[in-house]
Amino acid sequence: MQTDPRILFGRRLAQVRKLKGWSQERLALESGIARSYLGGVERGQRNIALINICKLAETLEVPVGELFLFEPPADGAP
Amino acid sequence: MQTDPRILFGRRLAQVRKLKGWSQERLALESGIARSYLGGVERGQRNIALINICKLAETLEVPVGELFLFEPPADGAP
Repeated sequence: MQTDPRILFGRRLAQVRKLKGWSQERLALESGIARSYLGGVERGQRNIALINICKLAETLEVPVGELFLFEPPADGAP
Repeated sequence: MQTDPRILFGRRLAQVRKLKGWSQERLALESGIARSYLGGVERGQRNIALINICKLAETLEVPVGELFLFEPPADGAP
């Protein structure tokens, strides 16, 4: 793993959520996961576990693997 | 999710590991994750978190999403 998986996952989750046109608040409400926790996940600050990962994918109606399609960092990106 | 994600993930992890011809002990050694913990994950008893999920995929040299290709349960399966 070139970068912290928490950062990669958080970035990808936010991307999938935005592609769906959902706010963080809506995803929190529909998944039953606290908005503050979800914010921490998207900021790469939380080591989210299996059950909640699957809950988010189910809520967003994507296969779980979709949340792990991390983009390679751009050249020179931190 | 029709079945507990811990069960589905554990079953899939064991499947990917066996396809590679690795023992649980070897995966534990190469990933740095305790064998007893790994056993619990494969038995569906652990809510394994992001960092360790990514570590296992990296050790098994598969994309993380590969570990989430859950098979649909057979008819009449518990």
